[in-house]
Amino acid sequence: MFRARCLLRALRACSSAPCPRQRPAARVSVRGALGVQSANGERVKVQGWIRSIRSQKEVLFLHVNDGSSLESLQVVADSSFDSRELAFGSSVEVQGQLVKSPSKKQNVELKAEKIEVVGSCDAKAFPFKYKERHPLEYLRQYPHLRCRTNVLGSVLRVRSEATAAIHSFFKDSGFVHIHTPVITSNDCEGAGELFQVEPSSKIKVPEENFFNIPVFLTVSGQLHLEVMSGAFTQVFTFGPTFRAENSQSRRHLAEFYMVEAEISFLESLQDLMQVMESLFKTTAMTVLSNCPKDVELCHKFLAPGQKDRLEHMLKNNFLIISYTEAVEILKQASQNFTFTPEWGADLHTEHEKYLVKHCGDIPVFVINYPLVLKPFYMRDNEDGPQHTVAAVDLLVPGVGELFGGSLREERYHLLEQRLARLGLTEAYQCWNLLPFIW
Amino acid sequence: MFRARCLLRALRACSSAPCPRQRPAARVSVRGALGVQSANGERVKVQGWIRSIRSQKEVLFLHVNDGSSLESLQVVADSSFDSRELAFGSSVEVQGQLVKSPSKKQNVELKAEKIEVVGSCDAKAFPFKYKERHPLEYLRQYPHLRCRTNVLGSVLRVRSEATAAIHSFFKDSGFVHIHTPVITSNDCEGAGELFQVEPSSKIKVPEENFFNIPVFLTVSGQLHLEVMSGAFTQVFTFGPTFRAENSQSRRHLAEFYMVEAEISFLESLQDLMQVMESLFKTTAMTVLSNCPKDVELCHKFLAPGQKDRLEHMLKNNFLIISYTEAVEILKQASQNFTFTPEWGADLHTEHEKYLVKHCGDIPVFVINYPLVLKPFYMRDNEDGPQHTVAAVDLLVPGVGELFGGSLREERYHLLEQRLARLGLTEAYQCWNLLPFIW
Repeated sequence: MFRARCLLRALRACSSAPCPRQRPAARVSVRGALGVQSANGERVKVQGWIRSIRSQKEVLFLHVNDGSSLESLQVVADSSFDSRELAFGSSVEVQGQLVKSPSKKQNVELKAEKIEVVGSCDAKAFPFKYKERHPLEYLRQYPHLRCRTNVLGSVLRVRSEATAAIHSFFKDSGFVHIHTPVITSNDCEGAGELFQVEPSSKIKVPEENFFNIPVFLTVSGQLHLEVMSGAFTQVFTFGPTFRAENSQSRRHLAEFYMVEAEISFLESLQDLMQVMESLFKTTAMTVLSNCPKDVELCHKFLAPGQKDRLEHMLKNNFLIISYTEAVEILKQASQNFTFTPEWGADLHTEHEKYLVKHCGDIPVFVINYPLVLKPFYMRDNEDGPQHTVAAVDLLVPGVGELFGGSLREERYHLLEQRLARLGLTEAYQCWNLLPFIW
Repeated sequence: MFRARCLLRALRACSSAPCPRQRPAARVSVRGALGVQSANGERVKVQGWIRSIRSQKEVLFLHVNDGSSLESLQVVADSSFDSRELAFGSSVEVQGQLVKSPSKKQNVELKAEKIEVVGSCDAKAFPFKYKERHPLEYLRQYPHLRCRTNVLGSVLRVRSEATAAIHSFFKDSGFVHIHTPVITSNDCEGAGELFQVEPSSKIKVPEENFFNIPVFLTVSGQLHLEVMSGAFTQVFTFGPTFRAENSQSRRHLAEFYMVEAEISFLESLQDLMQVMESLFKTTAMTVLSNCPKDVELCHKFLAPGQKDRLEHMLKNNFLIISYTEAVEILKQASQNFTFTPEWGADLHTEHEKYLVKHCGDIPVFVINYPLVLKPFYMRDNEDGPQHTVAAVDLLVPGVGELFGGSLREERYHLLEQRLARLGLTEAYQCWNLLPFIW
């Protein structure tokens, strides 16, 4: 497959030279074929699944898709190629010449010289029908086939691009990537939402733990990253995270992926917000530029209106308001909230949505939250009487809270005082001595 | 931090222009500072941990490391900066001018104008001592500090680079990245080695499973990837994998990271081996070129002799021998093996080591294994009487088996026959109907 790509590049470079017929056809992806700017009869081999078939008197039109892009490649064949096996859903290998398409719908089409059916498909038994838009609930029944549909294909390509963009962003910014452990004995956020892990073997002695101590699936790599940031300055992880919350909402999954980063020597929330805004914008712009058609499909069918909203977000600087300002805005709102906004209380989704709208549908950083709302390790602003810490949440239109972060308290005596006040002193003394797993 | 990097680039571009004193110092990493080719008094700010301190009559030399590279930056300061707090292990922020170093040991040094101790370190209580090489068993006691040592710093930087290189390799080759699930109900390889997952909450009803069915930690994403390759042609995953083997060897971890890829339309082992060889070489060369000093350290202290061996591997094409040839080679060996080599028996580590040595310490692909040794889904070569399948293992000097793979059996009737012969027909009928989790 690598050779195929190199060949294509070579073909592009000398596409005006005559192409000797005996040269073996280079394997190209549909995406690669569609990307050829001035097709000139290059001999190529394309493999994929038939998305549509249209038979005319003397010509046969196929659309072949291989998952490399949302768009399919049009294959034009002599009608003698027609056969029963050339059906919607069948996989084929087509060899032929890549030529400029006479149609305005596409730049390029493949003039077939040879079509081989690699795997035939019984269109009657196949659960998806040509040109039909199946509801997501219907697709859910076919986990082994549903990724061949446009909508799931697009979502997974976007996810793949976003994943790559996140890795690149941190690498380009000098962060060291850390694989924080999935199995861990530390339960960052209290035991209620944890999954416990044990060997499934039936011969195990009941009281004997495999790891000597109870272990869980990670709810956060934060503690491990904090340690690592004491050596590498800038570190990140992007791994699976788990919550045993038995809730059936769109916002709660038992298993999900989360980006976490820790930066040493950070002096201001401003610097932290700069990282967050850059991560958001770089990732979004990479996805938009690498799979525009997939994003278009999502905007058309899954999230109408999101396109303009996203462009609006990317064009503007994100806003910054303090928690205190946010509460003032909410108090002055004409809207009635289920939860009355009050200084010292958490912001609810209804509040977050209002704030984002109020700020002109631009992502907004809310900073300096009440000390009582946040964990003990966030940095005390030592202000008063409304006592706050240097925490930040990024609220995003259509989502609500997307990122959260804080400066960490580095002043030992303040940490000691807060642990004492929260009755955690002993727990954190022990923590240091526990033979916990890294 | 991004602005700092941009500034540095700008500084590099106009490093011969006089630098106005009032410009705020740009934050640079130690790696960034050391990479400046012709330092010319640029004002920068460096943050990190003191690795050594040497006080002379009028000058103070510090080595500051921030984990961005193995090498530290030499800071030269007036002796008036000397203080008790400037000790081994303390974290500092140094502002000054980046200048050409008069010493041959380094290109660049930082002429300090301001040194601030961000966090002091009690050198007596600190478990690591200046210039001392601590054994790994000793470091193991200090999981929160050990990554500040050269050896663990290097290992983690290499891992980070290798991870990035693997992601880039697949992306550049047109693969779609899939996050295959960690929690799954499918037990690819038999139930013996699985970890089971359950909510840790104490109020759960014993017989009621959170997911309705028993779930485990993944042992392989293969089944999920096979499904995805039926839509995207080329897919990969690179995630955590788990084995509940209670073995204390260097080769067995309960949690480890594994690269898995599936390619549709693959016709020959040759094409598969091409991917494997490219992945190996691209990753190794990226690591060698991005962190040569870290690799050097590993070669010096952790794996002496590995450097030449690696260069030898990268220079040469990997070899290909059949399993049958491998057994012949082993049978003719003058060496006595614990397990007598015999056609139809597994290759043991001692055999793998001998084969690699026999092949001149170049990685060697062993192909076409006996059908009886391999899982039912590997493609039948339909040869005989020594019946083999199109499987391949890559044996690497110093490691043994590094990659394994196969062509998948796509002929339905052959699959049916083999399932029947193995008594698995019913299991795989059910499998299709199980409400398993994706």
